[in-house]
Amino acid sequence: MGHDERKIREVHTTWIEAVNVGDLRRLLTLITDDLVLLNPGEEPLGRAGFIEKFSSAQQQFRINCTSDLEEVLISGDAAFTRSRDSLSVAPRGSSDVTQLAGYRLTVYRKQSDGRWLLARDAHTLSPHG
Amino acid sequence: MGHDERKIREVHTTWIEAVNVGDLRRLLTLITDDLVLLNPGEEPLGRAGFIEKFSSAQQQFRINCTSDLEEVLISGDAAFTRSRDSLSVAPRGSSDVTQLAGYRLTVYRKQSDGRWLLARDAHTLSPHG
Repeated sequence: MGHDERKIREVHTTWIEAVNVGDLRRLLTLITDDLVLLNPGEEPLGRAGFIEKFSSAQQQFRINCTSDLEEVLISGDAAFTRSRDSLSVAPRGSSDVTQLAGYRLTVYRKQSDGRWLLARDAHTLSPHG
Repeated sequence: MGHDERKIREVHTTWIEAVNVGDLRRLLTLITDDLVLLNPGEEPLGRAGFIEKFSSAQQQFRINCTSDLEEVLISGDAAFTRSRDSLSVAPRGSSDVTQLAGYRLTVYRKQSDGRWLLARDAHTLSPHG
């Protein structure tokens, strides 16, 4: 495994850990300024929309996600990953958990300082089980 | 616009046209052998699964899709596109149309002969309107 792939895998792992502890500040170090997130049934989210949605979700819900990388492809300063994800969401103070499962296709861009940042993401998570 | 971007836009346009006329043979000239399609609420589809699903859908439904490219990024022998899509689906012999809308993130790979083929795709289409 090359240096760039290790770096991308680290960003992927850090992303999931930061989501699970609600660390928005950390997440913002992992994304490009021109971020675009595609979520089923919603309009695309940019950086500002992501901040708003994540903050609101963290206030309302306990969230736990897992993500297994199934593929990493690097080509020049761009890379994409494919992962299999699961997400459990429960309103705070409730044990009424919703389970979602699906997949994610993510595009990363290498920055001039060598960091890889999440730039585009589409997921297919839907209620499951 | 460079040569590669024109080629990728051509594949995108041809894909949509071939879906709308049910031309599976044409579609198969546009995809890699290791194709992976991610659809909400379903397991990933490879080439064989795509053939089965498309054939079955064409027999049962009249399908019309539109897709507007919002972004094309090329890096070496890989590229990704982001598009805004709509899909109308009606059982054959029925006027009961279901409208879906959403977005698509697609990865293309350049082949040794210069062709760009669709390799990975995730969409967020959901019932709408």
